[in-house]
Amino acid sequence: MANRLTFYIFFLLCLCLGLLCVVFVTYWNAVWRGGFAWDGSSLQFNWHPVFMVTGLVVLYGFAAVLYRIPYTWRYDKTPWKLLHAGTLLLAFIFSILGLCAVFDFHNANNTPNLYSLHSWIGICTVALFALQWAAGFSAFLLPWTPVDIRKVTKPLHVWMGSIILVMSIISCISGINEKLFFVLKANVNGTRPYASLPPEAVFVNTFGVLIVAFGLVVLRILYNLKWQRPDPSSDGDGYRPLLHEER
Amino acid sequence: MANRLTFYIFFLLCLCLGLLCVVFVTYWNAVWRGGFAWDGSSLQFNWHPVFMVTGLVVLYGFAAVLYRIPYTWRYDKTPWKLLHAGTLLLAFIFSILGLCAVFDFHNANNTPNLYSLHSWIGICTVALFALQWAAGFSAFLLPWTPVDIRKVTKPLHVWMGSIILVMSIISCISGINEKLFFVLKANVNGTRPYASLPPEAVFVNTFGVLIVAFGLVVLRILYNLKWQRPDPSSDGDGYRPLLHEER
Repeated sequence: MANRLTFYIFFLLCLCLGLLCVVFVTYWNAVWRGGFAWDGSSLQFNWHPVFMVTGLVVLYGFAAVLYRIPYTWRYDKTPWKLLHAGTLLLAFIFSILGLCAVFDFHNANNTPNLYSLHSWIGICTVALFALQWAAGFSAFLLPWTPVDIRKVTKPLHVWMGSIILVMSIISCISGINEKLFFVLKANVNGTRPYASLPPEAVFVNTFGVLIVAFGLVVLRILYNLKWQRPDPSSDGDGYRPLLHEER
Repeated sequence: MANRLTFYIFFLLCLCLGLLCVVFVTYWNAVWRGGFAWDGSSLQFNWHPVFMVTGLVVLYGFAAVLYRIPYTWRYDKTPWKLLHAGTLLLAFIFSILGLCAVFDFHNANNTPNLYSLHSWIGICTVALFALQWAAGFSAFLLPWTPVDIRKVTKPLHVWMGSIILVMSIISCISGINEKLFFVLKANVNGTRPYASLPPEAVFVNTFGVLIVAFGLVVLRILYNLKWQRPDPSSDGDGYRPLLHEER
């Protein structure tokens, strides 16, 4: 009982931090960065952090901890599998939209794409995410995948899932840091330089800390063995097909 | 046997990636950034990435995987505990020197300290590292710490250890990304801008990817249950004092 209570405290923390991240990234870009558009201007760029943080960090993190909720254990796993895959698909669509926003912005302004370390780590993260989603779909949602393949794949799937989250957070923090140096310069539209810590800098640095905290809470939930869904199968494999033989 | 072979392949990869990181960060700062000094100039700043990467990433990662080496399992744990704590102390000294380098450089140039997101995450990482080292020393090296405290502390110690490594890597990548934007500007000392991907940019971006790869290999080694040191104690706690009753 104490174990469940601790889980729900962590889960609530995860939800609150995730929602705070979405609020912070939206407020930052809507208010301090001038809002949104899809016209090749910097207002189009503003979609980039919003989509990446909402998709590749927050929705991704929520989808990752879904199976750990004790409430879901009493029910058939099928709808939760679909919710897991569906939320991750939505997260992937968000991250593609986030990439489109920045590529369009760069192309409209004759800025090269994919030159910074932030972009190298970021594009690798999205590519790994695409592979992970396709591999997860093939292994756990297709009814004809042999149980042995599922057995071998599951620990790797969980591991890759957490690695991709770590890489997303690395990408986000390096990107936010870079953006603040770009926009917070003295005498540019009356802004104060980053080094003088104007209110926007404090707000966005805090937002960065929230992202790291969210990621750590998600990883804490994922790697606590006591919080893993009990294996419902009698033979101890627990990897029966979603669309076949699932109870 | 196959399990041990796989471990040693990962361990060798960990060693090679770690050494490559040290070579890359030293070469970058020695050759492209003009070398080293301790005079408040940018040559003093150059110590910052070298000390941080060598200490807070590479030595730290090596110390973390030490107990996983099967060769060490046949011997008394005491010298390995001391090597673990000693390597981490060296890593901590390196990171303090790395901080001194950047604080001195900032102070000599009237640049504020601790304003960027990189610095916020970085200083939290070093502070957590100090706490972790002190807590680890108190829990596992002091002979009078009760076994129950060790039992409760060990999973948290391993968890905090890996979290600190993740935070170090976030700090390093955001810092390297920031530094490349600072120094690779058109018409500054004949350099080409970062966006045109001059050789230095490719080299340092590759170095950033190596840091991430090193971190992921360390975490992979840490979280493979099959690679954990077997518990030598008959009562299954395995947390007997280093300086007392250790076999």
